[in-house]
Amino acid sequence: MAFLDEADRLKSVLRATTLCDGSRPENSGEHSWHLALYAMVLADQAGPGVSIDRVVRMLILHDLVEIDVGDVPIHSANGQAHGSAEVVAKERAAADRIFGLLPGDLGAEFRALWEEFEAAETPDAVFAKSLDRVQPVMQNLACGGGTWRTYGVTAEQLESRVGVKVARGTPGLWDWVRERTRSYFGS
Amino acid sequence: MAFLDEADRLKSVLRATTLCDGSRPENSGEHSWHLALYAMVLADQAGPGVSIDRVVRMLILHDLVEIDVGDVPIHSANGQAHGSAEVVAKERAAADRIFGLLPGDLGAEFRALWEEFEAAETPDAVFAKSLDRVQPVMQNLACGGGTWRTYGVTAEQLESRVGVKVARGTPGLWDWVRERTRSYFGS
Ligand SMILES: [Ca+2]
Repeated sequence: MAFLDEADRLKSVLRATTLCDGSRPENSGEHSWHLALYAMVLADQAGPGVSIDRVVRMLILHDLVEIDVGDVPIHSANGQAHGSAEVVAKERAAADRIFGLLPGDLGAEFRALWEEFEAAETPDAVFAKSLDRVQPVMQNLACGGGTWRTYGVTAEQLESRVGVKVARGTPGLWDWVRERTRSYFGS
Repeated sequence: MAFLDEADRLKSVLRATTLCDGSRPENSGEHSWHLALYAMVLADQAGPGVSIDRVVRMLILHDLVEIDVGDVPIHSANGQAHGSAEVVAKERAAADRIFGLLPGDLGAEFRALWEEFEAAETPDAVFAKSLDRVQPVMQNLACGGGTWRTYGVTAEQLESRVGVKVARGTPGLWDWVRERTRSYFGS
């Protein structure tokens, strides 16, 4: 049960986003739960061939590596830190350690699901990634633009860092969301 | 998206359990995430006919009513509060309101899954309930018996309030866990 005990630590990894009431930063455990709910609710936005059940599993697992690496906000370091070679290498080492706490078969299965998410090539992973990207945007819209203010994000940066990737998996949803971001960005 | 925005509030519903490091109470959002992970990891403990994907969905949804009602700890009010007629009525009203934020079909689907969980009759619901009951026990074991101390719980109370229900869905797991609780209760 070492893996399940270790997973508890994801509840202490803090993100750039806050709860909607602004009371505290969101943690990566509750974020992962919220995303699984997004997948269940927004299932009709998924492209053909997407298995929502696999997407939910992927999202439950997707941030576990942050126990070792922490969350790397998409808009931090002027949008350069997220996905850098250094971060990717650290996340792989974290995956070795954390999924290595599981019995062999299960560890390999979870690891493969995490790799699939990271690669963002299969329909399931593309949809899961889109939800991971769109959730903070929808959270910002519902709650007043928190992280956009923090990092001084422009409409163009939101489109290039976030919109393009969200639109890959859920084009209809991104159109809907972009429309709503206009009033925030005043465009 | 009112439903997904509303769900954010489950992250502010606090439970009797704490994080393993004792730093703060666990909230029901991150608890739901941890349980979904339990279902994925402990799939081999499920009885015949259990769909882990349905169990995961059930667990993602199972605590949403606490946004209105709060968490009712199993050992509070000497074990009498949980499942009382008053609490059940409040939870139904909460389900009406919260699942009512979804489009009709989806709201009915989620509501039915929550009702199934609460009734604890189908194989999926029995397994999901067992995980919901066993997680705080395993958390207490890993982290030093927090809520058992708070409420002065005895080995007999743990067996009758928790063990019997865990054993319904995951008998092998409860044997394993009970064995480990002996050193805490000194029996
Ligand atoms: Ca994420």
